[in-house]
Amino acid sequence: MARQLIRAIAVPLGGCTGTWAGGTAGGCEFPCPSPGRIMRPDDANVAGNVHGGTILKMIEEAGAIISTRHCNSQAGEPCVAALARVERTDFLSPVCIGEVANVSAEITYTSRHSVEVQVNVMSENILTGAKKVTNKATLWYVPLSLKNVNKVLEVPPIQYARKEQEDEGKKRYEEQKLDRLETKQRNGDVIFPVINPEPHTVGYSQSSLIHLVGPSDCTLLGFVHGGVTMKLMDEVAGIVAARHCKTNIVTASVDAINFHEKIKKGSVITISGRMTFTSNKSMEIEVFVDADPFVDEPRERYRAVSAFFTYVSLSKEGKPLPVPQLLTETEDEKRRFEEGKGRYLQTKAKRQAQMQQAARQ
Amino acid sequence: MARQLIRAIAVPLGGCTGTWAGGTAGGCEFPCPSPGRIMRPDDANVAGNVHGGTILKMIEEAGAIISTRHCNSQAGEPCVAALARVERTDFLSPVCIGEVANVSAEITYTSRHSVEVQVNVMSENILTGAKKVTNKATLWYVPLSLKNVNKVLEVPPIQYARKEQEDEGKKRYEEQKLDRLETKQRNGDVIFPVINPEPHTVGYSQSSLIHLVGPSDCTLLGFVHGGVTMKLMDEVAGIVAARHCKTNIVTASVDAINFHEKIKKGSVITISGRMTFTSNKSMEIEVFVDADPFVDEPRERYRAVSAFFTYVSLSKEGKPLPVPQLLTETEDEKRRFEEGKGRYLQTKAKRQAQMQQAARQ
Amino acid sequence: MARQLIRAIAVPLGGCTGTWAGGTAGGCEFPCPSPGRIMRPDDANVAGNVHGGTILKMIEEAGAIISTRHCNSQAGEPCVAALARVERTDFLSPVCIGEVANVSAEITYTSRHSVEVQVNVMSENILTGAKKVTNKATLWYVPLSLKNVNKVLEVPPIQYARKEQEDEGKKRYEEQKLDRLETKQRNGDVIFPVINPEPHTVGYSQSSLIHLVGPSDCTLLGFVHGGVTMKLMDEVAGIVAARHCKTNIVTASVDAINFHEKIKKGSVITISGRMTFTSNKSMEIEVFVDADPFVDEPRERYRAVSAFFTYVSLSKEGKPLPVPQLLTETEDEKRRFEEGKGRYLQTKAKRQAQMQQAARQ
Repeated sequence: MARQLIRAIAVPLGGCTGTWAGGTAGGCEFPCPSPGRIMRPDDANVAGNVHGGTILKMIEEAGAIISTRHCNSQAGEPCVAALARVERTDFLSPVCIGEVANVSAEITYTSRHSVEVQVNVMSENILTGAKKVTNKATLWYVPLSLKNVNKVLEVPPIQYARKEQEDEGKKRYEEQKLDRLETKQRNGDVIFPVINPEPHTVGYSQSSLIHLVGPSDCTLLGFVHGGVTMKLMDEVAGIVAARHCKTNIVTASVDAINFHEKIKKGSVITISGRMTFTSNKSMEIEVFVDADPFVDEPRERYRAVSAFFTYVSLSKEGKPLPVPQLLTETEDEKRRFEEGKGRYLQTKAKRQAQMQQAARQ
Repeated sequence: MARQLIRAIAVPLGGCTGTWAGGTAGGCEFPCPSPGRIMRPDDANVAGNVHGGTILKMIEEAGAIISTRHCNSQAGEPCVAALARVERTDFLSPVCIGEVANVSAEITYTSRHSVEVQVNVMSENILTGAKKVTNKATLWYVPLSLKNVNKVLEVPPIQYARKEQEDEGKKRYEEQKLDRLETKQRNGDVIFPVINPEPHTVGYSQSSLIHLVGPSDCTLLGFVHGGVTMKLMDEVAGIVAARHCKTNIVTASVDAINFHEKIKKGSVITISGRMTFTSNKSMEIEVFVDADPFVDEPRERYRAVSAFFTYVSLSKEGKPLPVPQLLTETEDEKRRFEEGKGRYLQTKAKRQAQMQQAARQ
Repeated sequence: MARQLIRAIAVPLGGCTGTWAGGTAGGCEFPCPSPGRIMRPDDANVAGNVHGGTILKMIEEAGAIISTRHCNSQAGEPCVAALARVERTDFLSPVCIGEVANVSAEITYTSRHSVEVQVNVMSENILTGAKKVTNKATLWYVPLSLKNVNKVLEVPPIQYARKEQEDEGKKRYEEQKLDRLETKQRNGDVIFPVINPEPHTVGYSQSSLIHLVGPSDCTLLGFVHGGVTMKLMDEVAGIVAARHCKTNIVTASVDAINFHEKIKKGSVITISGRMTFTSNKSMEIEVFVDADPFVDEPRERYRAVSAFFTYVSLSKEGKPLPVPQLLTETEDEKRRFEEGKGRYLQTKAKRQAQMQQAARQ
C-alpha cells in the first residue's frame, strides 16, 4: 500500500505498534494518529454500544482534515475537500462508552481531481490498555475552490514508494468511478408510506427523519459534512432494524456510499430507510437522503445520497441473535430482496476467500 | 402577582452584597447572578433568529430545577418534578445569535400534588446593553418519587403574601385541570401520509421526525425532559411552516401543551406536524408526539404530548409577510381549519381586551 | 477580597417587576435568579463525576458575558472580551450527574486594557438541598474591537469601595503580566511520538486530539471561546491520567493558563498532553494547544495555549488512591519532573500557610 505521510498529522499518538515511519513509509499501522476521543453516553445506544454513525462521523472528519490539508499544501487557490464516496466498511468490533476511539488517516492515492484517504479506527480501553481495530475505511475527496464552490481544483500528486502502489491506486480509482456512475442511475426510487402495516413487512419498519441543516453540520463552504449525513443515515437504519426485530441492534457494515450532490446550509433533508433483505442473522436496510433546498432557492427536491447498511441483532451477552424473516408483499419488494440476497452472498463469498487466503499464508 | 420566594433559590443571586432582603434570606454567599447563556449559531435558524424550541428548553430546565428543589425542601421521600403542562406562551420578541438569554423562575402556586412555576426570559444584547422581555411562561409540575416513578408525592405548601394570590392560583389550577382532561379525549387522531400532494395543501407541508431517546435527553428518573420534547416539537412545526410558505419563519406562540404520559429512555418518539389554519399573517400547526416503548417492553405506541404552535413569516427586514392560504381538501381538514380559526379569533379578542385594559390604566 | 458590584449584572433577570423585599438590596430589580444548569451524563465520566473541563467552560462563559457587558457599558466602539489568562484553580469538590451547577461572576479589578473577573461555582443537590463550593476562579479578559479584531480597546474603570482593593488588584495585575511573559518564552517545546513505550513512562500515556473549529465553538468575532479550548485540554489531560494509572481520575487543579494567541474559525487545533510529574497521590500533566490556520492563511502552525493540569485517582468510594510513579527516561523528562516537583511543593507550602492562617483567625 502506498503510504504518504502527512507530517503535521503524524506527530501525536502514543501506543503506535511497529516501527514509526522509519523513513518514508514504514510498517507502522497507524501512521497519522490523531484524535482519541472518549465515547460518551450520547454516542451509544441503551446497551452501551457506540453507534456506527458516531464512528462514521469521526472517520469522515479525519478524512476531511487530511485531504483539505493536502490539497492546500501547494501555493494555489485555497480549497476545501468535499466527500465524494466512502468504500464498503465493516464494523469489526463494537466500541463501548468510556473507551477512547483513536482515528488515524493517510492519503493513499491521488488522481488529478480526487484524493483517496485510508482511515483506521482503533478503540482503546484506557483502563485495561486493551486495543481493538474497529474500522478500516477508504474515502474519496474532491477539492472545491473556496471562492467558487462549483469549481473542482487540481490535487497535488503524492510520491509512491513503489510503482505498484500507484497502479493499484489507479485501479481502485477506476473501479469506484464506474460504480458511482451506476449508482447515480438507480436514483429515482422513493419510499412510499404504508398505512397500518403488518409486523415484519417492509412497511412496518420503514422510517424517516427530517433534519434542518444548521451551521454546525457544515464545512467552511456552507455544505453539510459527509460525516453528519452518514451519522443521520445510520440513525434511521438503526431505527428500522430495531423496529423490525425489537432487540438491541448494532451496525455490522455499510456498503459503498456515493455523495451525488452537495447539500446546502438551511436545507431540510429527509432521511428514509426501508429493509430490503434479511438473512438468518443480519438485516440489510436501504437508506436515501433527499434534500429540499430551502427558502431562497427555486430548485426541487433531489436525491443527495443513498446506501445500504447491514445490522445484526445482539443478545444481552453480545451474541448474535436470529432475525425475524422479512415479509415481502409487492413485486418490487421481492425484487429488492433478491438483489439484497445477491449482495449478501457476494460479500460472504469474498470474506471466505479472504480467510482462506489468510490461512494459506 | 403572587410572589412566594423559595428559600433555596433565593441564595445564589446577584448583586446583593451583605443583607439579602432584610436578613431572613441572609447568607447570600454568591453575589452575582448566573449570567445566562450566550446564544450560538446552532440555537438559531439561517436568518439568525433563535429557535422558539431553544427558548422553551431553557424555560423548562429552569422550571424543573426550581420545582424539584421545592418539592425536596422538606424531609420526606426524594422526588423529581415532572412537567405536566405548559400554559399558552407568546414569543414577544425574537432573540438573536450573540445575545444573552437570562432566565428567571419562581413558584407562584402549589396544590396538593402540583406546582405552578412562572418563568421569564429576557434577552440582552451585551454590546449595546439593550434588554427585551422574550417570554413569560407558566408551567405545572408534579413530584414523582425517585424510588417509585408511578407514585405522585405531596407538595410542600408555599406561603402567600395575600389571600387573593392563593385564590387566583386555585382558579388557574382548576382551569388547567379541566383543559387537560378535555385534551386527553381528543387524542386518538393520527397524521396519515399523503402521496404526491399539491402545494399549500395540508399533505404538502406535513412532516415528521423520529428521535431515539438518549441518556442526555432524560431526567434522573430516566424519563425525557419536557423541554427536550418541546424543542423537537418546535423543530417539526418550523419545518411544516417553512415548507408551506418557503420563507424565513419564527415561532410566534405556543398553545397550552399537556404532557399526558411519560416517555422512557430508549424509546423512539415520532413527532408529527400538520398545518391546521392560516390567517393573513400567521400559520397554526398541530404537533403530536407518539412514543414506541422500545426493545424490552410489551406496550403499544401511545400519544404522549400534543400542542398547537403558531408561526409567522418574516421578510429580510424582519417584517411579517402575508402567508399563502392553506388549501383544505377533506372534511376533517375543513373542520380543523374552522377550529383553528376559532382559537385565532379568541386569542385576538383576548389580546385586544388586554390592550384596552392596559390603555385604561 | 475586593468586591466591586457591577450594576449591569445586578439587574438582568427577567420580568419580575414590583418591589423586591423591602428595598435593602437596592436596585436589584429582578429578584428571581437564573437557576443554573443540570449536569447531564455527557458532562461526566463513566463514574458520574462531571469533567473539570465542563466546569471550566461554564466559568469562562460567565466571565466572557460579564466582561463583555462591562466593556460595552460606556458609549464607544463595540467590543468583545477575549480571554487572556485564567489563574490557578482548584477543584474543591466533585460534581455529579443530576446536580445543578450555579455560576456567579463579578468584576474585581480593571486595568487600562484588561478586566479581572472572579467566578464562583456552587454545586447543589436539588434533592437533598446540599450545596458545595466547587470552584473559585480568576480570569483576565481583554476587549477587542468588533470592527478590527487586532485593536485592543480601553476598559471603563470600576469604582472600589476601599483604596486597598484597588492596590491589591494592581498587584495581582502586575504579577500575572510577568508570568504571561515568562510562559510565552517557554513555548518552543513539542511532544514527539514514542514507539512501543513501557508502562508508566512519559511516552506511554502521552496523547493528543485534533479538533476542527466550527461556528458554535466561536465568539461573535469568529475566534474560539477560551472555555471550549479549556474543555478540550481537560479531555486530553484526563486521557493521559487514565492511561497512566488505569483508574477513575478527576481534575484536582489547573495551573495558570495563558492564551497567547487567538484561534480562528476553520482552524484545526491539536491538543497534546504528557505527564510531567507524579507525587504519591497526584499527577501533573502538561497540555499544549497548537493551531494550524486553515486553508486561506499563509501562516505556520503556532502554539496558542499551554497549561498544567493536576489529576488525582479515586477509588469506587471516592477516596484518593496512590498513583504509580512516573518513569522518566530522557534528560528533558527528568528536568520537567523536577520542575513539576517544585510546583507541587510550592503549592503544598502555600496551602499549608493558608490553613495555618485560617486556623489562627
